[in-house]
Amino acid sequence: MEANRLIEMLLEHPGQYISGEEISRRLSISRTAVWKQIAKLREEGYEFESAPRRGYRLIRQPDKLSQAGLLHALQGNRIFGRRLKLLESTPSTQEEVRKLAEEGAPHGTLVLAEEQTAGRGRQGRRWYSPPGKGIWMSLLLRPERQPLSIAPQLTLLAAVAVCRAVRKVGGVDAGIKWPNDILVGGRKLCGIIVESVAEDELIRFAVAGIGIDVNLEANDIPQELSPIATSLSLESGRRIDRITLIGAVLTEMEQLYELYTQEGFAPVSHLWEALSVTLGREIAVHTPNGVLKGTATGLDPSGALLLLDQDGKHFTIFSGEVQLGG
Amino acid sequence: MEANRLIEMLLEHPGQYISGEEISRRLSISRTAVWKQIAKLREEGYEFESAPRRGYRLIRQPDKLSQAGLLHALQGNRIFGRRLKLLESTPSTQEEVRKLAEEGAPHGTLVLAEEQTAGRGRQGRRWYSPPGKGIWMSLLLRPERQPLSIAPQLTLLAAVAVCRAVRKVGGVDAGIKWPNDILVGGRKLCGIIVESVAEDELIRFAVAGIGIDVNLEANDIPQELSPIATSLSLESGRRIDRITLIGAVLTEMEQLYELYTQEGFAPVSHLWEALSVTLGREIAVHTPNGVLKGTATGLDPSGALLLLDQDGKHFTIFSGEVQLGG
Repeated sequence: MEANRLIEMLLEHPGQYISGEEISRRLSISRTAVWKQIAKLREEGYEFESAPRRGYRLIRQPDKLSQAGLLHALQGNRIFGRRLKLLESTPSTQEEVRKLAEEGAPHGTLVLAEEQTAGRGRQGRRWYSPPGKGIWMSLLLRPERQPLSIAPQLTLLAAVAVCRAVRKVGGVDAGIKWPNDILVGGRKLCGIIVESVAEDELIRFAVAGIGIDVNLEANDIPQELSPIATSLSLESGRRIDRITLIGAVLTEMEQLYELYTQEGFAPVSHLWEALSVTLGREIAVHTPNGVLKGTATGLDPSGALLLLDQDGKHFTIFSGEVQLGG
Repeated sequence: MEANRLIEMLLEHPGQYISGEEISRRLSISRTAVWKQIAKLREEGYEFESAPRRGYRLIRQPDKLSQAGLLHALQGNRIFGRRLKLLESTPSTQEEVRKLAEEGAPHGTLVLAEEQTAGRGRQGRRWYSPPGKGIWMSLLLRPERQPLSIAPQLTLLAAVAVCRAVRKVGGVDAGIKWPNDILVGGRKLCGIIVESVAEDELIRFAVAGIGIDVNLEANDIPQELSPIATSLSLESGRRIDRITLIGAVLTEMEQLYELYTQEGFAPVSHLWEALSVTLGREIAVHTPNGVLKGTATGLDPSGALLLLDQDGKHFTIFSGEVQLGG
């Protein structure tokens, strides 16, 4: 608790020294207790510079998610991530959020885990989520009295938010493959899954699951996935601070969700199209009813993908796996 | 166990005597054991006629759901209800099925309870589910690779199946109020709720919750509900055998679901329209965006309600509470 408040205090003054005396005063603990807290934080991987009379300065945060660091990164948000649960290991953050949702957790509740032991990707596939190197998180959305039909729009909204955050923090040229894969150089960096629970025609809640391969190194990626998967550090050539990226994703999500509730899907659709690597390209889509080939031309107002085939026939695709390059 | 097999044997020969000797032989138990089983079943509320040399004849089953009685009633079904879980009391059969679904339970799994302590109706309202007098059950549906947009069709399908079963077994003139209330003489007899869980644009599974007020007497119905609620026994003037009705509902559901997977929504929509008490009438619909008044004219291909207002304007209603008589 005191360690959290100490970290927050140091994060509020990045790069600056704070004297032991001031820490002692502001936390109402003895100088010896301050020293003990600093020692404890060093054990957790925090690095400090200390200088006589000047006090302590935070140099580096550990490569570990901390409640304090997360709350600091999310303090600009009004709702998303303000309630958060950080887990060392969990079968799946999606399941965690679903349970919390059934117990009445509010809109914007976030669950993060250092590791998922049974992370799920789209269509029941496993999502490889090794400890400490990625962002594995799920966000609870409670749209107010919205019909079920908007669920695909939430999927696209999440893709836009994550793609924008990854581009900003990682400085990479990430794009979206319909509906919600984030790619860099044709390889997948991030998977998104939105699960919705509806009652008759109304959404009760939705859970946006976001998995980002942040600091995975080449040998962290299972061999069979290496032609199609990458990580943000591999693409940007540097370690990425996960907490900064989490903060950026949640900020983008909150802003975009607010825009969406106020203005509807059109502006989200516009942003999605601008980031898309699917549109204007020859693609093959594996749908439940077979494979369709043609050029992706845009999104329809519901979020479905529009396709124009060689014979000039138009198709509206609600569900399927897109393969780029036909 | 032996009691179950004995009941099954007697149910296979309705109205007929089976001799103690034959029972003893077929169950491989002593005559004394047969007598003990009969005594035990009498305690549970079964009534037998016994005659020297002729044996036992089942006269009446207790007003209690039994695994054996249910399996017998559902033996004509291939899938729906073939896996069933019967509970004495549960907070909600919907929650039970949802849990089983997440654990991988198959399409058609059924959970019944004599009593629900926290039964839920539409839009988070409580559903009054007293012990022994109604049918409170939930059925797991796993549509294969279907988009989320079909969920409202499952709601309408369930309404048609339940309405047909209630009419057949109870001999009452039941009709459907959009989307899924079953009414007799303007009062509600049965509530249906379909919860769907989707992943991105595909339904993972849906749970159809069905609550039927079967043998509630006038004083079983909470006073504030009496102008709007009724029971099948009140409407038909006789006790209704719940197991027979459960069998009829599940048979209708299975047949209709098969028709739906083969032929699509059109035939279901047609049956729904024929049973509707909403169409052709002046109604008021309380939607998330306000109240709309007009004449209900039909269903659109997705299952939404079509409304024509006084000014000749057409509306498509995806969600709302219908009030008959405008």
